[in-house]
Amino acid sequence: MINSGKISEIVTGILKNDRKTLAQAITLIESTRVDDRKNADKLLSKLLPHTGNSIRIGISGVPGVGKSTFIESFGLRLIESGHRVAVLAIDPSSPKTGGSILGDKTRMEKLSKHKDSFIRPSPTQGKLGGVSRRTRETILLAEASGFDIILIETVGVGQSETTVAMLTDIFLLLISPAGGDDLQGIKKGIVELSDLIIVNKADGDLLQAANRTAVDYANALQFLRNEKDTWQPLVLKCSALKDRGIPSILKAVNNFCKQTQRSGLFQTRRSEQAVAAMWEEISERLNENLRSNNKVKKIINNIQVDLRKGMISPSIAANQILKSFLN
Amino acid sequence: MINSGKISEIVTGILKNDRKTLAQAITLIESTRVDDRKNADKLLSKLLPHTGNSIRIGISGVPGVGKSTFIESFGLRLIESGHRVAVLAIDPSSPKTGGSILGDKTRMEKLSKHKDSFIRPSPTQGKLGGVSRRTRETILLAEASGFDIILIETVGVGQSETTVAMLTDIFLLLISPAGGDDLQGIKKGIVELSDLIIVNKADGDLLQAANRTAVDYANALQFLRNEKDTWQPLVLKCSALKDRGIPSILKAVNNFCKQTQRSGLFQTRRSEQAVAAMWEEISERLNENLRSNNKVKKIINNIQVDLRKGMISPSIAANQILKSFLN
Repeated sequence: MINSGKISEIVTGILKNDRKTLAQAITLIESTRVDDRKNADKLLSKLLPHTGNSIRIGISGVPGVGKSTFIESFGLRLIESGHRVAVLAIDPSSPKTGGSILGDKTRMEKLSKHKDSFIRPSPTQGKLGGVSRRTRETILLAEASGFDIILIETVGVGQSETTVAMLTDIFLLLISPAGGDDLQGIKKGIVELSDLIIVNKADGDLLQAANRTAVDYANALQFLRNEKDTWQPLVLKCSALKDRGIPSILKAVNNFCKQTQRSGLFQTRRSEQAVAAMWEEISERLNENLRSNNKVKKIINNIQVDLRKGMISPSIAANQILKSFLN
Repeated sequence: MINSGKISEIVTGILKNDRKTLAQAITLIESTRVDDRKNADKLLSKLLPHTGNSIRIGISGVPGVGKSTFIESFGLRLIESGHRVAVLAIDPSSPKTGGSILGDKTRMEKLSKHKDSFIRPSPTQGKLGGVSRRTRETILLAEASGFDIILIETVGVGQSETTVAMLTDIFLLLISPAGGDDLQGIKKGIVELSDLIIVNKADGDLLQAANRTAVDYANALQFLRNEKDTWQPLVLKCSALKDRGIPSILKAVNNFCKQTQRSGLFQTRRSEQAVAAMWEEISERLNENLRSNNKVKKIINNIQVDLRKGMISPSIAANQILKSFLN
């Protein structure tokens, strides 16, 4: 149980950039308990004026592409340039098994120990909808706590990229050097979400393959270009392991921010994200509301029995439940 | 406008296996007009007793893996064995551009001309939620119209596979012969959804690679095995182009149905799908209801303005709208 004195204490701690308080606050917003949820809402309201002042960067790529190594190298460069960096992770896991190494601190050895970084591994459970809300709120907490760069890591499985793109200002896709026909393997939708495509592992034996992959993707991007867009996606190369090519990625991110802030795209994206987030929350809470409604609870079991037997269709079952909820 | 006489006519036409009527009925359930929706519900209620008697087969794979060629070859064999085959497609398209060649009749030349087949290309628009509902209802129409095998094709991009798995009895994943490290590229979650993994293009130069890929996947599946499951996923090889290996896939599908019907898994999956479909429809219709609510319409614009300016958070905006809807 948290009282209002405790909430003020957390607000103060966060505004003082105390990382222990930040971690506590994240645990609070991750809780699914009703009273915790209310307190989380109060906390977020109080912190709202202190949020929004970061660059939110999405980072995606299939397992093995080197996301952790990249974040270690990229994050340390950002800190060198005077930033404070928070790393969060969205883990869609698998429908059946779950488990992940996203946001694993041991894989970002120097970064995780640095006083100007904060790494929060992905929560171990939860549906993507809930994950999205929690991550959005964690971003706000980290911003209020003085982090001006937020890196959000995810693994390349389709839906989670869309979620990350809806939470971030710029989206980086990491790919490995590979043959040309690999292009089809990476889903077109994800390439289209990407503001920067980064060919990692551009070193040693893979250097030539990396060059070829970069050219292939640059060509492919031609077809996706939209002249009306104020930013045209770029393909860059780096070797995160050897810490090579990172400064030009930093520069590209800076250019992206400058250009899109001037054109208004940056602000438009954020406000569209806020509206989409609102509708997502409305939808989730409406569902919660319906499921806990007493009239619905009374009839739901019988309806589900009939439905399971194939005596009524899902549509008709849905109609019956909605009627009893809305009347 | 459709009157109740017209609905009876459609029912009769469908039960007589008239394919022109079936096509009309699908167009009706694809419509988003309110009166069409009501008529679609009436139609589906009347047809419900004539549905459910097919095997619903999901087929997925990345672009270029040979889905159309496979469906041509597989579909014709099914017809030879005395079945009537409907082919539907779920196309998640891309968030930005759209467009697809799924369910393209010209790519299934013989099958599309056969009197015992029916091919319906994917609708050109719509969100995945709506697509799922429309496809579910199209399956019912096709079943009522005497098709006892329904093939549902989708392209490998994560979310749409989950949708297809929720609509089908058995899920087939097509893969291409390739190097061992490709394993990571195909998302674990999708492999886990698969009841049969089929290495296509097992012919000519690719035969050896196909053998290797089959072994790799068979090994990988060991780790995903769940002793409690009554069906353990299989890896098979074929060449759809040369029409080789298709009979053993047919046999595996038959075995799957026999085993899972005996164990009850078949029926359990269907009833769980029905319940999930009901909740999906409830969620969609609740949202439609809220958006068309007069009290909500009055306040929504001002709230969105504040939200876009960052003056309120998505959570608070959602709360305000929900209050005015529910009170």
